[in-house]
Amino acid sequence: MQRRCLEDSTCPVARSLDSIGDWWTLLIVRDAMLGIRRFSDFQRSLGLARNVLSARLKKMVADGVMTMAPAADGTTYQEYRLTKKGEGLLPVLVAMRQWGERFLFAPDEKHPELTDVRSGKAVEQMRVRNVDGEECDVADLGLVTAS
Amino acid sequence: MQRRCLEDSTCPVARSLDSIGDWWTLLIVRDAMLGIRRFSDFQRSLGLARNVLSARLKKMVADGVMTMAPAADGTTYQEYRLTKKGEGLLPVLVAMRQWGERFLFAPDEKHPELTDVRSGKAVEQMRVRNVDGEECDVADLGLVTAS
Repeated sequence: MQRRCLEDSTCPVARSLDSIGDWWTLLIVRDAMLGIRRFSDFQRSLGLARNVLSARLKKMVADGVMTMAPAADGTTYQEYRLTKKGEGLLPVLVAMRQWGERFLFAPDEKHPELTDVRSGKAVEQMRVRNVDGEECDVADLGLVTAS
Repeated sequence: MQRRCLEDSTCPVARSLDSIGDWWTLLIVRDAMLGIRRFSDFQRSLGLARNVLSARLKKMVADGVMTMAPAADGTTYQEYRLTKKGEGLLPVLVAMRQWGERFLFAPDEKHPELTDVRSGKAVEQMRVRNVDGEECDVADLGLVTAS
């Protein structure tokens, strides 16, 4: 399918989607958040062809979502790490995960649980709130053009 | 690019991405949340070819993200409305929007502001928290397999 370039859109949702590109990007970010650093480990986790993974990672480095650096253990490997911009995708991934848990799994179907490893406590459902902490539903939200 | 089917994945992120399919889906959900109901209005907003939009909407109805019903005004038009499952994508869209606002706009670049229309108050930045309300960073999170 042909994609319009939405980079110039004034809608931040459209611009984000344009930057993320396709959903492999979010799976790579997920893996990086879980501690994967090396090309071969991303490849094993995602089952993606070398050339496709290579192109995705290259774009992510160019977009400032990841950086490439020599491996921390002094070997000749290169490691890919998330930048602040890449780590900024955490709320997107957690919201996506929770939507999947809620609507795409059977009640008795098991999946790994996202947990705060400091305390062992579960992660709370993400909710949209206004600055006073009041929960907002779809019907409560609107777009206001800055003047 | 060939896509592996991730419908059977036990990772809720992968399953969500598989269900969402491509990012037009999220732009259609965005438009529906802003009140668009009719095929021609989606088409005008998204600049999408008829056949592409038609296929997307059909898939979204099949997936239970939208429903199709006669227009509320009694005309012969059909209207597309979000189901609970579709409205459940609100945190995903808001998180995506905020990431775009933060990382893809210049400081002085204007965009419409997402607002709680009941109070006129701005929407808070979405953050990942544990069930005690403590904010979680990427490094604080891990996956625990349910036993």
